[in-house]
Amino acid sequence: MPEKTIDRRTLLASLATSAAGVALSQHSSAGTRVAADSHGIKNWDIITDVLVAGSGAAGISAAIDARRGGADVLVVEKLNKLGGSSALSGGVIYAGGGTALQKALGFTDSVESMYHYIAHSGRKHPHLDKIQRYCEQSVAHFDWLVDNGVPYNKLFSDGKGLGFDEASLYYSGSEEAWPWRDECRPAPRGHVPWEKGHQGGKRLMRSLLASAKKLGVKTQKRVSGERLVVESDGRVTGMLVDIRGERMAIKAKRGIVLACGGFIHNREMVKLYAPELYDCSVPWANAGDLGIGIQMGMGAGAGALRMDQGFAIGPIYPPENTIAGIAVNQMGQRLTSEEGYHAVMGNVVTYKQDGIAYFICDKDSDRPQGDDNQPLVAKANTIKELEQKAGFPVGSLQMSVNYYNEHAKNGEDPMFHKSKKYLSPIDKPPFKVYDLSVDKTMYSSHTFGGLHTNVDSQVINVWGEVINGLYAAGRNTSGLPTSPYIASGISVGDCTFFGRQAGQHAAANKS
Amino acid sequence: MPEKTIDRRTLLASLATSAAGVALSQHSSAGTRVAADSHGIKNWDIITDVLVAGSGAAGISAAIDARRGGADVLVVEKLNKLGGSSALSGGVIYAGGGTALQKALGFTDSVESMYHYIAHSGRKHPHLDKIQRYCEQSVAHFDWLVDNGVPYNKLFSDGKGLGFDEASLYYSGSEEAWPWRDECRPAPRGHVPWEKGHQGGKRLMRSLLASAKKLGVKTQKRVSGERLVVESDGRVTGMLVDIRGERMAIKAKRGIVLACGGFIHNREMVKLYAPELYDCSVPWANAGDLGIGIQMGMGAGAGALRMDQGFAIGPIYPPENTIAGIAVNQMGQRLTSEEGYHAVMGNVVTYKQDGIAYFICDKDSDRPQGDDNQPLVAKANTIKELEQKAGFPVGSLQMSVNYYNEHAKNGEDPMFHKSKKYLSPIDKPPFKVYDLSVDKTMYSSHTFGGLHTNVDSQVINVWGEVINGLYAAGRNTSGLPTSPYIASGISVGDCTFFGRQAGQHAAANKS
Repeated sequence: MPEKTIDRRTLLASLATSAAGVALSQHSSAGTRVAADSHGIKNWDIITDVLVAGSGAAGISAAIDARRGGADVLVVEKLNKLGGSSALSGGVIYAGGGTALQKALGFTDSVESMYHYIAHSGRKHPHLDKIQRYCEQSVAHFDWLVDNGVPYNKLFSDGKGLGFDEASLYYSGSEEAWPWRDECRPAPRGHVPWEKGHQGGKRLMRSLLASAKKLGVKTQKRVSGERLVVESDGRVTGMLVDIRGERMAIKAKRGIVLACGGFIHNREMVKLYAPELYDCSVPWANAGDLGIGIQMGMGAGAGALRMDQGFAIGPIYPPENTIAGIAVNQMGQRLTSEEGYHAVMGNVVTYKQDGIAYFICDKDSDRPQGDDNQPLVAKANTIKELEQKAGFPVGSLQMSVNYYNEHAKNGEDPMFHKSKKYLSPIDKPPFKVYDLSVDKTMYSSHTFGGLHTNVDSQVINVWGEVINGLYAAGRNTSGLPTSPYIASGISVGDCTFFGRQAGQHAAANKS
Repeated sequence: MPEKTIDRRTLLASLATSAAGVALSQHSSAGTRVAADSHGIKNWDIITDVLVAGSGAAGISAAIDARRGGADVLVVEKLNKLGGSSALSGGVIYAGGGTALQKALGFTDSVESMYHYIAHSGRKHPHLDKIQRYCEQSVAHFDWLVDNGVPYNKLFSDGKGLGFDEASLYYSGSEEAWPWRDECRPAPRGHVPWEKGHQGGKRLMRSLLASAKKLGVKTQKRVSGERLVVESDGRVTGMLVDIRGERMAIKAKRGIVLACGGFIHNREMVKLYAPELYDCSVPWANAGDLGIGIQMGMGAGAGALRMDQGFAIGPIYPPENTIAGIAVNQMGQRLTSEEGYHAVMGNVVTYKQDGIAYFICDKDSDRPQGDDNQPLVAKANTIKELEQKAGFPVGSLQMSVNYYNEHAKNGEDPMFHKSKKYLSPIDKPPFKVYDLSVDKTMYSSHTFGGLHTNVDSQVINVWGEVINGLYAAGRNTSGLPTSPYIASGISVGDCTFFGRQAGQHAAANKS
């Protein structure tokens, strides 16, 4: 249904949470990257306590908690639909330490195990302070989701990958793969919203949006943030926005929360900041992920961290039979355990192999017939012939396959410790090579780099100082997700949790 | 000799290039990250046409060309010595396309070969526009160096690594290694300043500093940049500095050039922005590489690109006999050609192997006695025993060494095409494993990430717009150097060349 047309006066009246039309303060012309007055704007068009840019999981979680904190809240969304990339996702929340759902299904977990897994299985030097708060408050955070109407089904799935059945709990990362199974007690931590006929992300966002509405959060679609208004003392007090073609100024008395996603669809920005992700074939996020929030924050002097990092996957499973095959680089060398979380393999290919890799299988570990996601490179009745046809260095692939087979037949994998159930020799012709390269197979990607924030979701400038009045969450920030991405649910989990921190602290920021 | 004490009045008189003491313009309180007036500063203490922060190769090259462009130029240096990290370097300039020195020594080269090598041997999606201008103007740039008194000796060295002899021309990268030797015609492009008893970097900077002085460039040590002054229309017009403990304001009528190096000594910044480099054992740059210029630029809204990238090396040669050994990862898999440029191997270890690698050798390819740079992990009389002692997966190292030996004895290397002269089987006991890991061996590192600039060295903000009045060069910017760093001389070459662009354009910026 088309958005109904409303006139400017009606629109403003519907959005202002206190008297609008007030003159911009003398200082607000000190806008960082833009002089507000030079764009013909002299007055605040809209005034609210807390302004949230973006209506995904981060933005709506911020809005809910800011509203609960007593603030008037306005959420602006660039697109014509609320929900952000979160609504397109699986909606998985990575939660643990003994959530109500884990307990109800008989699993024990600890904050320590969860912390250890997140802190040590991703990239070097993650944000430990954020991981700690996230793990310590995870049980309460799951209760918050339930309180906001997100439905979970008391059913566990032991399948690999996001359950397509009715289960709401599963192992969403590599917790059961070596070395994690030995280093920290595995527990299923992927919490999936469930309701018959609904996909997780849609279901999550429907609940959160309904909760926000009930609390009195105002939302407005087709409003795009453009520049922040920065006072001469560094405080952020407002945002210049484009409302259906008109530039307007919104004042936020308590704070602005930037929560409008990553930048995978801003291709120039991806090429400049995250060159490895640029070659991945499928940018995978809501069309609004244009980096606008990150730009506005950087324009106000914020630091932006880990801008090269992102999510990159070209799954080799499902189906599970393919896990018995092996992934190799151009030299025929095996890369990692094929049973690990998709994005761990994806990270190795994207960042550590210049985007180039191959999948080697026999008849039993072959891909499903008719699946054309991964192009067939070569097919042969011997590994030697396969190696030659596919152009691997002479003897290299034979060496890797022989080594793998020799140990697989004993149920062993000395290099990568793949679980016994996935180990069987690659010895039943025909043998095949599929292309796993990021620009050849269907390779999905989005970005993880973003604004530097502290555990309260305050935005930090390049000197390490708090930018007063400015908050950010989700993929506008550098948060829990790293390359490699270690489990489904870390990103949306981070969005909801740190969105809430932003909302709570912005609401309390009465200066 | 201690810096002599001078009073404030004398200092200011010596630095101001036109009337100082002028009131800060009304707009300058619109400083991005700082309100100039809030720090008690109401007046410009010093006024110049072009202000350059940093006295290394980038800053002094900028100063020379700005002065030649008719501007009054003031260079400020944080430390008590001029020359920056460039003076600590080998002083190599990567130049080609048929420089006077190449021609004099009988080498032919082309802009196309040089462009191809730089554009394709480094990381994905380099800044092609910069590479193009650099290569097209390389012959003239070399002449400029000579004109400024940098001495070169008409002697070529075919040794690996920076020549310690009297030669001024050598192969400073992997031009002769596969696949580059086949893809683009190799030519020696490492141009080393030479004078008896002088190290290259010192010699380079002594010449450039002398040339700058002769032209009338003013320099002042122990002056540290702190914040930029940004007008409400976005123009950068000044810099707040710390001069021996006092904060002062310097106005630059035509432009400011940020050229004060990378950020390897700002450890918090390295951990946040370049986590892989954080673990390298030896931060290798002048003590002033604290990221101050990058911070000032970002504080004014500039984009900062490739902040994770850097230079990382733990050389396995010289001596050349060690090149016959092999470098492997934790799985015993070989990594790359051992004859490639140090930093290519360093990049693989640092960024693609989580910082962990090992060097495998026999009696003939062993490290020199008494060299304790790389810790000995294990020693044995058979590869099987060595593998066991060092803890490689069972059979893995034997597999790699057998494969390598089998082909090496025929003078072949099917995986990495190491040159025949470096190929000999690893079969003479005792066999050894040395630790090549970034935190175990002497691993040098510095940063390559920095401000986004265009080919004229104008600083670009996060929206892709030019920040008027602001220029940057060298390791304050994201320029030609990438991870992997592909040849000695790319960084100092980039500093001098794009420093000049900055100086020329700033001098011409009379608004």
